[in-house]
Amino acid sequence: MALATLNDDVSTPFVKAQFSDRVLIRTILSRPDGGAGLAGQTVKVGGWVKTGREQGKGSFAFLELNDGSCPANLQVIVDAAVAPLGQLVQTGTCVHVEGLLKVPPEGTKQRVELRVEKVHHVGPVDPAKYPLPKTRLTLEFLRDFVHFRPRTNTISAVARIRNALAYATHTFFQNHSFLYIHTPIVTTSDCEGAGEMFQVTTLISDAEKVEKELIKNPPPSEADIEAAKALVKEKGEAVAQLKSAKASKGEITASVAELNKAKENLSRLEERSKLKPGIPQKDGKIDYSQDFFARQAFLTVSGQLQVETYACAVSSVYTFGPTFRAEHSHTSRHLAEFWMVEPEIAFADLKDDMNCAEAYVKFLCQWLLDNCIDDMEFMAKNFDKGCIDRLRMVASTSFERISYTEAIKLLEEAVKKDKKFENKVEWGIDLASEHERFLTEVLFKKPVIVHDYPKGIKAFYMRLNDDMKTVAAMDVLVPKVGELIGGSQREERYEVIEKRILEMGLPLEPYEWYLDLRRYGTVKHCGFGLGFERMILFATGIDNIRDVIPFPRYPGRADL
Amino acid sequence: MALATLNDDVSTPFVKAQFSDRVLIRTILSRPDGGAGLAGQTVKVGGWVKTGREQGKGSFAFLELNDGSCPANLQVIVDAAVAPLGQLVQTGTCVHVEGLLKVPPEGTKQRVELRVEKVHHVGPVDPAKYPLPKTRLTLEFLRDFVHFRPRTNTISAVARIRNALAYATHTFFQNHSFLYIHTPIVTTSDCEGAGEMFQVTTLISDAEKVEKELIKNPPPSEADIEAAKALVKEKGEAVAQLKSAKASKGEITASVAELNKAKENLSRLEERSKLKPGIPQKDGKIDYSQDFFARQAFLTVSGQLQVETYACAVSSVYTFGPTFRAEHSHTSRHLAEFWMVEPEIAFADLKDDMNCAEAYVKFLCQWLLDNCIDDMEFMAKNFDKGCIDRLRMVASTSFERISYTEAIKLLEEAVKKDKKFENKVEWGIDLASEHERFLTEVLFKKPVIVHDYPKGIKAFYMRLNDDMKTVAAMDVLVPKVGELIGGSQREERYEVIEKRILEMGLPLEPYEWYLDLRRYGTVKHCGFGLGFERMILFATGIDNIRDVIPFPRYPGRADL
Repeated sequence: MALATLNDDVSTPFVKAQFSDRVLIRTILSRPDGGAGLAGQTVKVGGWVKTGREQGKGSFAFLELNDGSCPANLQVIVDAAVAPLGQLVQTGTCVHVEGLLKVPPEGTKQRVELRVEKVHHVGPVDPAKYPLPKTRLTLEFLRDFVHFRPRTNTISAVARIRNALAYATHTFFQNHSFLYIHTPIVTTSDCEGAGEMFQVTTLISDAEKVEKELIKNPPPSEADIEAAKALVKEKGEAVAQLKSAKASKGEITASVAELNKAKENLSRLEERSKLKPGIPQKDGKIDYSQDFFARQAFLTVSGQLQVETYACAVSSVYTFGPTFRAEHSHTSRHLAEFWMVEPEIAFADLKDDMNCAEAYVKFLCQWLLDNCIDDMEFMAKNFDKGCIDRLRMVASTSFERISYTEAIKLLEEAVKKDKKFENKVEWGIDLASEHERFLTEVLFKKPVIVHDYPKGIKAFYMRLNDDMKTVAAMDVLVPKVGELIGGSQREERYEVIEKRILEMGLPLEPYEWYLDLRRYGTVKHCGFGLGFERMILFATGIDNIRDVIPFPRYPGRADL
Repeated sequence: MALATLNDDVSTPFVKAQFSDRVLIRTILSRPDGGAGLAGQTVKVGGWVKTGREQGKGSFAFLELNDGSCPANLQVIVDAAVAPLGQLVQTGTCVHVEGLLKVPPEGTKQRVELRVEKVHHVGPVDPAKYPLPKTRLTLEFLRDFVHFRPRTNTISAVARIRNALAYATHTFFQNHSFLYIHTPIVTTSDCEGAGEMFQVTTLISDAEKVEKELIKNPPPSEADIEAAKALVKEKGEAVAQLKSAKASKGEITASVAELNKAKENLSRLEERSKLKPGIPQKDGKIDYSQDFFARQAFLTVSGQLQVETYACAVSSVYTFGPTFRAEHSHTSRHLAEFWMVEPEIAFADLKDDMNCAEAYVKFLCQWLLDNCIDDMEFMAKNFDKGCIDRLRMVASTSFERISYTEAIKLLEEAVKKDKKFENKVEWGIDLASEHERFLTEVLFKKPVIVHDYPKGIKAFYMRLNDDMKTVAAMDVLVPKVGELIGGSQREERYEVIEKRILEMGLPLEPYEWYLDLRRYGTVKHCGFGLGFERMILFATGIDNIRDVIPFPRYPGRADL
């Protein structure tokens, strides 16, 4: 019976390995026969013990082993003759073992189990100190241990779902010939002039360096500089004297060298005397010309404006990257660092935009059903009974499309029929989350695209409609989270967008490059943004956004 | 003859459209017949005019149209009867047109051309003002126009190659069951303690807000506060008096309300009196407890340490994201913001690491040959004659693997044979770029993996070999760029890594979470980092790294 080593060997019944000599537990357990057909094969596996127990008076142990490749555990049996059992059974222990796959006795849940013949490595755990005991832990508790929480069932399932949605995103846009563009993280543009931004700077650390240096090496005094000046004068006079006395070339050269040394010393002292502790100032303000980028720089809040430069050159593009908001929001829906997907399409209008958004969201849902059903079943069992049905519904149902004006009418009718909202309903308001969720969850019971919003509540770059009151904007609302996507056709007419910027009280200068796209070879185009963590909340039914990103950042917290 | 609209209609001879009613020029020109088989079809296309010229005494115009989907232009013919020609022929003009595909007369280069029947939209260009004239422009010149440069042949070809390499990266790791993990951009850990980091802060903007507020609304004086205190005392006495006089409940309530108002006013004034201009200080240092994350925060220099927490839970993972260095390097090889790919593999050692790195680089090269050959031909013609052969060689040749000690021997032998290096060769040195390129370009003429470096020149987390002198590190060297990948097996032994951190003079406290991974359930693991822009330089033969990222950031420069 051959050892099933997997490195790039596709002739084994297992998938290609991950450059490791062990078999993924998923490749055993995810087979239609639950792995039973592999009985008789010898394999290496590695993973972390979920639970372990000694049996038969300590003659053998059962381990539930998980390697993160799937939610299911492999049942592993170790005889006391093979290895000391006490260490192996502790939750969190890492084991790398080799053994024989066997069909377990009738009446057990497993279809296959591993009987260990050799233990290659053990990474032990002291259960008295390990922060993740066997008991059920709350997601909130786990946030204090971001370096261990991927070892839990929930956070590892979220990681697999997040990974699947990311690859589905790339696959969708690549299938439709969009180019993935890396927009900048550090930016000197402020998209929309809205939202608090994080500043990126080296001024503080530079100032700290100067301060340390000045403590170690105090700056020269006035007297030091005067003395250095006097020395330069003296050495200069010496040179002049030697020259007028027609001294030898050697003597003059030596004297000039001394003069130069004195000059260098003076200029070094003068340079150092300019060193001042603190952040450099000019005219009573911070002197950003001395910052790393020679101007004030921030973390991006959106790649949209920048990616438009590529849409206006290579047609269909998308970004997928981190974005930042320095808002002091302590809600379950906000992060200071989160990921956004932002496609931008040239030669396309609002209808194309809605078609793209709908196709993309459906694709993501279908992808999870096709590729992550075991993780989705875990979510359905533990967090949100309806989450799989919701994916199925969204993947297969046409999204409702209604104008903002129609949406307001429907909400007003609901109010007349005694529906209570906390926020007043009238034309011109920004729809509140309660309105959005009423439309998608109660009224239509499916995703709803609301389009053509009042211009007063939307950004300057959205295309003004012919009614002069609304703009070609659209939001995709879905059950569970409300707004999942916001997008618009962009204003491609130079005169109109210039007027809109000024109307909104924004300065033109920072947008000159953006206006250039309308001045030279302007094109009809549109795009949208999807909050990636919102999509994960929608898919999994998890409530707090801090649990669907590996390393959450929010006010007061940035672990690791 | 039907209009070939393409939205999701796969029954047409074209690929699925990009949510637009136009056909991608690539889908016409990249057919084996060069598009000739489509003659007779009516299509819509959109793009930007590369060159245009009026012919036949102004009776018609030829336009070379490019939409960014491929390097080739579609030849478009417009009759003067269809649209005014003067505007159409300017370089940079955007046109969205409909017409008939035709086989051009014998003897022309094109296999198909479009005869326009309808012009849907024109985005004009004033050639006197457009910054990108028809003439050949240097890449350096184009850096001043990052918002227009993707309209050039070179930068759009780079965008397509960059996109292809990004998707190939995801496809490779997904094929091998790695999970894509989003490591944080804002971090409070300093990987390796090396490298200058950018600080992320809201302290400066908060201080500016306070300053503005204090100018608008000066802080209360001592006298204001004394007066407010006196008022509180007075109101308090009034309440006491009413109570002792057994006044009516109404009178007492009114009096208490006045007292509370006075107290609120006092606490508001006291709060405002604490407002101080400038960045908050405590004990002579900046008080970071008042910063957004309640501690000092930076932009990440690598996601490795953080992604290890996922490798030590879900086995095989990778990151692909932006990383940052605040180094004042003005070279053609350094950026302040660049993208890195960092896989991390559990249950794997240095050999597995080298296998993975070699397979990955080969996969990238083969992917470009399979998916971007037209862009590669453009690069071969304009930048680097050998770039296609280089891809073929790397995709098909086994990488040489030599130890650092062997590499030093080979370099010393070369020195004996009169090879001149600027940097001295002896055991213990960090290999310089000239040494690396000599090994890969001259000596082996293929990629070389150098492994097992002296511990003194490598990071603390690399696994100490049994010789106690070297660590299980490896670098992949390739022709043209030298070091493309750096990686290592990680030290999984708690006692050894703790000793290494202390040996290097680093504090333990910031690494406690990293040490925890070795304390509890430790696992043999390895990983590497690939500089994504270096890979593009290697593939394209372009010399300056600023030209292979859409929005380059370097000292003094962060446009848009």
